Amino acid sequence: MTDLVAPTIDDILEARRTLAGVAVRTPLLRSEKLDALTGARILIKCENLQRTGAFKFRGAYNCLSRLDRAAFPGGVVAYSTGNHGQAIATVGRMLGIAATIVMPDDAPAIKISKARENGARVVLYDRQTQSREQIAAEIAEKSPVAIVPPGDNPLVIAGQATVAAEAFEQAGDVAIDAVMVPCGGGGLSAGTCLAARATPSRAEIWAVEPEDFDDTRRSLATGKREVNPALGGSICDALLAPTPAELPFSINRQGLAKVLVASDLEVMRAIRYAFEELRLVAEPGGVIALAALLNNPEAVRGKNIIVIVSGGNVEPAIFTRALKADDRQSVTQ
Amino acid sequence: MTDLVAPTIDDILEARRTLAGVAVRTPLLRSEKLDALTGARILIKCENLQRTGAFKFRGAYNCLSRLDRAAFPGGVVAYSTGNHGQAIATVGRMLGIAATIVMPDDAPAIKISKARENGARVVLYDRQTQSREQIAAEIAEKSPVAIVPPGDNPLVIAGQATVAAEAFEQAGDVAIDAVMVPCGGGGLSAGTCLAARATPSRAEIWAVEPEDFDDTRRSLATGKREVNPALGGSICDALLAPTPAELPFSINRQGLAKVLVASDLEVMRAIRYAFEELRLVAEPGGVIALAALLNNPEAVRGKNIIVIVSGGNVEPAIFTRALKADDRQSVTQ
Repeated sequence: MTDLVAPTIDDILEARRTLAGVAVRTPLLRSEKLDALTGARILIKCENLQRTGAFKFRGAYNCLSRLDRAAFPGGVVAYSTGNHGQAIATVGRMLGIAATIVMPDDAPAIKISKARENGARVVLYDRQTQSREQIAAEIAEKSPVAIVPPGDNPLVIAGQATVAAEAFEQAGDVAIDAVMVPCGGGGLSAGTCLAARATPSRAEIWAVEPEDFDDTRRSLATGKREVNPALGGSICDALLAPTPAELPFSINRQGLAKVLVASDLEVMRAIRYAFEELRLVAEPGGVIALAALLNNPEAVRGKNIIVIVSGGNVEPAIFTRALKADDRQSVTQ
Repeated sequence: MTDLVAPTIDDILEARRTLAGVAVRTPLLRSEKLDALTGARILIKCENLQRTGAFKFRGAYNCLSRLDRAAFPGGVVAYSTGNHGQAIATVGRMLGIAATIVMPDDAPAIKISKARENGARVVLYDRQTQSREQIAAEIAEKSPVAIVPPGDNPLVIAGQATVAAEAFEQAGDVAIDAVMVPCGGGGLSAGTCLAARATPSRAEIWAVEPEDFDDTRRSLATGKREVNPALGGSICDALLAPTPAELPFSINRQGLAKVLVASDLEVMRAIRYAFEELRLVAEPGGVIALAALLNNPEAVRGKNIIVIVSGGNVEPAIFTRALKADDRQSVTQ
């Protein structure tokens, strides 16, 4: 059991106030074609249009804006598969807080260079042999810096919860049946569960994981945090946490109605679909909930569904490959 | 002189009411990097995220929702470089109005097929030898259909004016110095001029045309509607009207502060910039105002600028080519 406490409804409301006028109120888009394809009403929450290109900005800003600077004159250190680090670096620059980012050495080059452009110190590690938590802990031991984990922090989760809270508000009178949300370490899923609980809505929360990185799905089944057999190899680089984070998992095990998976091929098709039908640039991990939707239209028929597109930081080469996918018919017809 | 009358402030307000809850309230995005590059505050109005992927939806819906169906039981006919036709086809289906679209045979295949998917009848013509206005007129002579031109219609212009009206509202207290807007036939530019006049803002309106299709720029200089020497050949297919439309030009000649141009290469670089920094899918004609901005940072230094990205219907092959541009440094550093 974690000794961290889940954020309350008040914490989420406070996060919304903190982020008002700072985070982008990202649009909730519709597509006639997507509705026709699924027989459902689909509302796409576009966090790829968030500052830094991912929802992670929300949690980072909510957390760093309350950092005790006297206690941590060295600033913050974050370990991250990419977007969380990018968000911490950007928010650090915005708020004048020094940031050190621990990133895997196989993270997309664009994410590493962007963190450095934002003035962050980047420490690379080998995903196969080293522990990012341990590297961050060592840095925090040697200097007065606060560790900002991507999930195991109530302020971060409260920030991520504002994505769904905002989407429910934008949906207005539409009674949402389910929210489909990408799931890596589980912070966004957990925030989504809490946001749904804070509304009169009876929406279910469906997390979506990469096919071979379904640690949350297996953990829900066994009741304890399971580990992924591999540490790399999926195109969804943003979702490759080795195991569910502790606090998010304690929330997700109560809040998630189910967990779906999608393959890399399905993710690539969804990138193309988002390009053609929604004019969105989505990254592989960011578009995985849309991939699961396209692959399971029967699961949503007749329902009102929010699909969170969580990020848009994708390398041109991968995006180009997705646009060239020649099996388009199977998902867009 | 045209005998059509420019829409009033009340017409624009009425269009906003008509479009409320129907058109997407597209976001006004910012980018730290773009602000740093230009030394200005840049607000990107994302009409590529509008329904049908372009601002044209607004004018089409505002116009067709007031069609006299008893007088025109055959519905409507539109001549269009693509996005206007697409919008008319979609709105026709939404409102149960039959639509015939006259399109150049070199329009992107994706636009032709999408119009047909929406149930429209598509009539193709040769841009080099035939007049689209004449083909539409012949159709209207033979059957009881109303012609909906892309620019020469007050209801269409009032609809397009809601783009800038909405952007000014979203900008809130920020005093806008200029709005940069793509210009083909001139309908969006004209609507933008009228919207600016309807606010306390003293914003200038800057239209942007493709380098070799600068008919509006030359027309403002001579005071009469000039014709482009070529009818095709630019990548900006959405902006290749042969000459300024009459009613828009009568508005633009009073309202535009200046007209800039951008080359195809600059447009391709801007597509890549929008992909990387804004996670937006923009089409060549849609991104031309951003191209002009990137090419003229000294013109905006210290100012608050709205840049309209007007459409996102781009073929994968062109988008892929833009992502491969190897001269990125010159626009992003």
